[in-house]
Amino acid sequence: MTVTKPAADFSALFHPRAIAVIGASQDLTRISGQPIKALKAAGYKGDIYLVNPKYPELHGLKCYPSAASINAPVDMAIVAVPAPGVADAIRDCGKAGIKYAVVLTAGFRETGAEGVNLEAELKRAGIEAGVRMVGPNCQGMVAVPSRVWACFGSISEEVELTEGDVSCVFQSGGFGYAIVNLAELQGVGFRTCVSSGNETDLSTPEMLEAFLDDPGTKMAFAVMEGTPDARRLLDVGRKALATGKPVLIWKSANTEAGAKAAASHTANMTGRADLFRAAFRQSGLIEVDDVEPIVDIAKLVSQGRRAKGKRIGALSISGGSGIVFADRCVREGLTLPPFAASTVAALRKIIPAFGSSENPADVTAGIFNDMGLLTKTLEIVLQDPGIDQLTIMLASIPGAPAARAAEAIVAAAAKTDKPVHVAWSGRRSKSEAAYRILEAGKVPVVPTPVRLAQAAAVLARFEEDRARLGTRKAPAPTKPVTLSLPAGAVTLSEAESKDVLSAYGIAVTQEVVVPEGGSLLAKVAKLSPPFAVKVVSRDIAHKSDVGGVKLGLRDVLSAEAAAREVVANARRAKPDAKIEGVLVSEMATGLEVLIGVVNDPGFGPTVALGLGGVLTEVLRDVTYRIAPFGIEDARDMIGELKGARLFAGYRGQPAVDIEALARMLVQVSGMAYAMKDRLAEMDINPVFVGQKGAVAADALVVLK
Amino acid sequence: MTVTKPAADFSALFHPRAIAVIGASQDLTRISGQPIKALKAAGYKGDIYLVNPKYPELHGLKCYPSAASINAPVDMAIVAVPAPGVADAIRDCGKAGIKYAVVLTAGFRETGAEGVNLEAELKRAGIEAGVRMVGPNCQGMVAVPSRVWACFGSISEEVELTEGDVSCVFQSGGFGYAIVNLAELQGVGFRTCVSSGNETDLSTPEMLEAFLDDPGTKMAFAVMEGTPDARRLLDVGRKALATGKPVLIWKSANTEAGAKAAASHTANMTGRADLFRAAFRQSGLIEVDDVEPIVDIAKLVSQGRRAKGKRIGALSISGGSGIVFADRCVREGLTLPPFAASTVAALRKIIPAFGSSENPADVTAGIFNDMGLLTKTLEIVLQDPGIDQLTIMLASIPGAPAARAAEAIVAAAAKTDKPVHVAWSGRRSKSEAAYRILEAGKVPVVPTPVRLAQAAAVLARFEEDRARLGTRKAPAPTKPVTLSLPAGAVTLSEAESKDVLSAYGIAVTQEVVVPEGGSLLAKVAKLSPPFAVKVVSRDIAHKSDVGGVKLGLRDVLSAEAAAREVVANARRAKPDAKIEGVLVSEMATGLEVLIGVVNDPGFGPTVALGLGGVLTEVLRDVTYRIAPFGIEDARDMIGELKGARLFAGYRGQPAVDIEALARMLVQVSGMAYAMKDRLAEMDINPVFVGQKGAVAADALVVLK
Repeated sequence: MTVTKPAADFSALFHPRAIAVIGASQDLTRISGQPIKALKAAGYKGDIYLVNPKYPELHGLKCYPSAASINAPVDMAIVAVPAPGVADAIRDCGKAGIKYAVVLTAGFRETGAEGVNLEAELKRAGIEAGVRMVGPNCQGMVAVPSRVWACFGSISEEVELTEGDVSCVFQSGGFGYAIVNLAELQGVGFRTCVSSGNETDLSTPEMLEAFLDDPGTKMAFAVMEGTPDARRLLDVGRKALATGKPVLIWKSANTEAGAKAAASHTANMTGRADLFRAAFRQSGLIEVDDVEPIVDIAKLVSQGRRAKGKRIGALSISGGSGIVFADRCVREGLTLPPFAASTVAALRKIIPAFGSSENPADVTAGIFNDMGLLTKTLEIVLQDPGIDQLTIMLASIPGAPAARAAEAIVAAAAKTDKPVHVAWSGRRSKSEAAYRILEAGKVPVVPTPVRLAQAAAVLARFEEDRARLGTRKAPAPTKPVTLSLPAGAVTLSEAESKDVLSAYGIAVTQEVVVPEGGSLLAKVAKLSPPFAVKVVSRDIAHKSDVGGVKLGLRDVLSAEAAAREVVANARRAKPDAKIEGVLVSEMATGLEVLIGVVNDPGFGPTVALGLGGVLTEVLRDVTYRIAPFGIEDARDMIGELKGARLFAGYRGQPAVDIEALARMLVQVSGMAYAMKDRLAEMDINPVFVGQKGAVAADALVVLK
Repeated sequence: MTVTKPAADFSALFHPRAIAVIGASQDLTRISGQPIKALKAAGYKGDIYLVNPKYPELHGLKCYPSAASINAPVDMAIVAVPAPGVADAIRDCGKAGIKYAVVLTAGFRETGAEGVNLEAELKRAGIEAGVRMVGPNCQGMVAVPSRVWACFGSISEEVELTEGDVSCVFQSGGFGYAIVNLAELQGVGFRTCVSSGNETDLSTPEMLEAFLDDPGTKMAFAVMEGTPDARRLLDVGRKALATGKPVLIWKSANTEAGAKAAASHTANMTGRADLFRAAFRQSGLIEVDDVEPIVDIAKLVSQGRRAKGKRIGALSISGGSGIVFADRCVREGLTLPPFAASTVAALRKIIPAFGSSENPADVTAGIFNDMGLLTKTLEIVLQDPGIDQLTIMLASIPGAPAARAAEAIVAAAAKTDKPVHVAWSGRRSKSEAAYRILEAGKVPVVPTPVRLAQAAAVLARFEEDRARLGTRKAPAPTKPVTLSLPAGAVTLSEAESKDVLSAYGIAVTQEVVVPEGGSLLAKVAKLSPPFAVKVVSRDIAHKSDVGGVKLGLRDVLSAEAAAREVVANARRAKPDAKIEGVLVSEMATGLEVLIGVVNDPGFGPTVALGLGGVLTEVLRDVTYRIAPFGIEDARDMIGELKGARLFAGYRGQPAVDIEALARMLVQVSGMAYAMKDRLAEMDINPVFVGQKGAVAADALVVLK
């Protein structure tokens, strides 16, 4: 459906055989010196070539006048020359056969008009030279397994970063590496981290796809302000579902204040937060909005066990933690089903009366008097076929009891493939043994029951999305219909707009256009009253505002009078408007909704669905999907409206034809995509959804 | 307005001169032994008296056969005898003149019927003996300044807990102390911590009030499942506003699963989450739902500076953090106003072009090359009169630059009384100096910009609530009206219900009751058509369901026909119903809302306001306040409805009389409180809010 570039092979970027530093500095504290120091400190095993025509030698290494003069295979260049020289440096890389450049230099489009020109030149240079670029205006990248520290700033000193299975990309280097740092402090190991800066070439979506292709990456995340490549996020999501590797996105710059700050930062196009959210929902991407969720989800993913279902068994040594855990699980869509009768009976023999043997079970702290009891309890619950995952809450017990509990938990976890997680906030200083046991046994520990519930819910939803969204077939593309559309940026009249809809098979009200002065009687013979009469003019987009609409006319006579009136009203209000006549329609009935299309600069054509009338005006009850999409997505849209219950009938109103509305949404999405080069925006408002069928009662197509 | 017990003086509980341990064990690992060990380990300076008739001496101390035999002033008893002996132990305390007992023993109402009886006996014993009790079924309390570790479990070993200005109470000891532990690990210092268990005597609200009276407590929090004393939370909130000490409440057991788990835990009445939320909103209490918010807010409070406003100035060394900070600030109701022109001009001289001098300013990491520039930047922004608070984001810079930045920040903070906070996640292991400098300078550090924005917003709202809610006068109590209400649990007919409303001055539709067979014509002379005609019967609460309502009758003739019809319909549907006649009313018009009253077991009479029709049915758009309340609270209720915009007019409908609705809400709240001993529940549905005035068109009063 959507045509994207094929995924590139990024192995040379993540595992370069040799690295050139273009603009290498004598001063290792400068941006053009820090990567040299970092590569050495990290123990990078490949060759490092320094390039700077000013020196024959630097830091005990031969210094080359240009990349082209190196004469040895090099996979990556780190570019740190001043902005005006970067394009030349990239051309030099091209000559040297270097396929990837990490451009640290700032001073491009984020600084104004001159920078915009420099960046355009850089982009051309990259394409012409066949060099793929990270940056510019970035802090560089780190590939932990291959000891590549191609970066500057505080991350260049963090060469002991724990290796793990999380890869990430972020447009803000300082903030992104602060997240990496904080996450690692809390126990997350990293693989590849990319500060992508202005994303002149390599974009966040493309990096995420590369991470999903990387066998060593189990989870990826991005922190992004925006991207012109937004539509490609759908492919990323689908690939995440296909590979079973969760992709977390922290989309920032969602408020006016945030977007304003982003403009002077990486100047990435921030885009509409509601469309991003729709794309995430549509494709299985996971939205996050702080560091802790990333940490907690990463820990759970690292265990390498799929959440097979949403049914959680919970054991606590403190009733209070079981209660907040249950609260949050339920709020996030997990369930704590009753244990099987045999489970409860077996637990009752172990758990004292002041505890609880029901899910969430309160085994009480007394269990530490005989750790065999904990082992038994864990086995009993893990054997319950109604339980998909097990959570154990240990409050903050320290020392030897914690270590013994850890042993029992690790042993029990080894006997099952169900996810087993622990909520525990014991002080590491007093509980080192327990932490080591749990880490060695790959049992994730999250500090609070609430955070654990949230992370487990995210992963359960991800597995649900894999089953639900992952199987959806992209709809066959709707063929562009040959229409004699006027050239240029024109707003079509209602009648013309409805002709476009009809051409794409979308049901519109039965109606006729009567030229001014023409006879209504002959024209309306096939229509049944009551009628709606509206003025037809491209120059009048908002007909009601000029008295250009009359509704509920019971016979032809009233319709004729109405026709004269709406034309007169329109002429009075807009004397210059070219009036083509009147549109006489049958009156449709049913539940009012509106369908809109926006042609977003990032996502392209996107369909909006809202409930009509009071609900839309007062509650902004609108939902989106990126076009085109199929019937399941359309059903999802309808279901996620706040007022979705209205479709099932209310206050004696009958249930309406949801399927007809869903089909119309699919048709509109196909049409919007087929017309994406001409469509600026479109409104179908209202659509009447009846007991049988749905029909567009008014429409406005704006061409570009 | 609400009559509560006067605040007790708890200084002897928090600073006991001597402590008796009733049921002292020879085995220091037992619950009845751990407090002895903990008091000694903590360095409690008062005398410790052990009580156990089995021993003449224990652990090198004289052992007494009873508390009464001690013959020295004792302020606190720790009771750890088996459940059946606890009431006797309390009576013994009474004889000994001990005013406070911390009852650790479990096995009361949380275990079933026998426990319920034991607990009732315990409660009586406490009252009769004049002993105030913490617990039972609790883990005990800790008073850090006076080194009182009257507790068991892992907290009994945490005697190095950092002293600070936060006090807390929690119903779940294990979970509560895990929170204390985790919060302290993140830098929070504690004062008094109370595990309150079953709260047979001392309740969460009473403990919170005691904390607010304690001069050393700057902030208090509670983790609670529920309380029969819920209404007293309003007093706690008002006292928090008056003293300026924030009170945070983590109310758990808000879901069915959570409430079920709570029933077998401390068996506290969990209550309705929406009413708790209303009480918080009404009285300035702050709801939290995990540990991190408690930690972050506590850190900010500890600086001892009031948030004088919501206007935040932000400086970051990484644009990305400024963007997410701005996003979250705006979402939480803070603002990042533009800096004054002079501020921007001054910053431009310091901040490089690829940074930003607009709020949130991106000073860039380059500032660390000359720390004097950071000092200047801080001073410039702090002098901007349009900025109330300053946030500095340092990403995760480590080592010497972090220490230099810390010095500059502490110096700048010392020259202002505006709150100054830092978002920073530098590794403590690499940045000990910087952490110590910030701690010594009392500049709070929160690990992520998002968490900092959230905490700052909470405190800014608290200060706003102090100004907004703190000045509200409790309304004069509405006098109970002498009404000849039927005895017992009776549902009144619409006509009777409206008589009750009228007696309290609440406007109802103009109407008359016509006995069956009576002449309508004479009765309705003073009413203007159109009319509504409804059957009158206490036995028919839902008149529409039986065909007992006819609306929009245009003249007396139609009304007479309708009267015959509704009576016939009602008789057919409910042959046994006693029918008193028909009610003929004028038809009211306007925006439909509903007002309800629930007489909650915890909060007492509580008023609900919802939007009528589709909005209520589909969106559950309802808000609550605990009765009685004044006009400002009533206006708040109206304003916080999701569909509040409807009151200002929509789709050509006129704006309606919000003040009339607010007055009616106040009247209903006064009436509900005055009738609290008889009112089970009440529904006024619909109320029509017109362009002038509001009128109850139907009402149903259920007595108890």
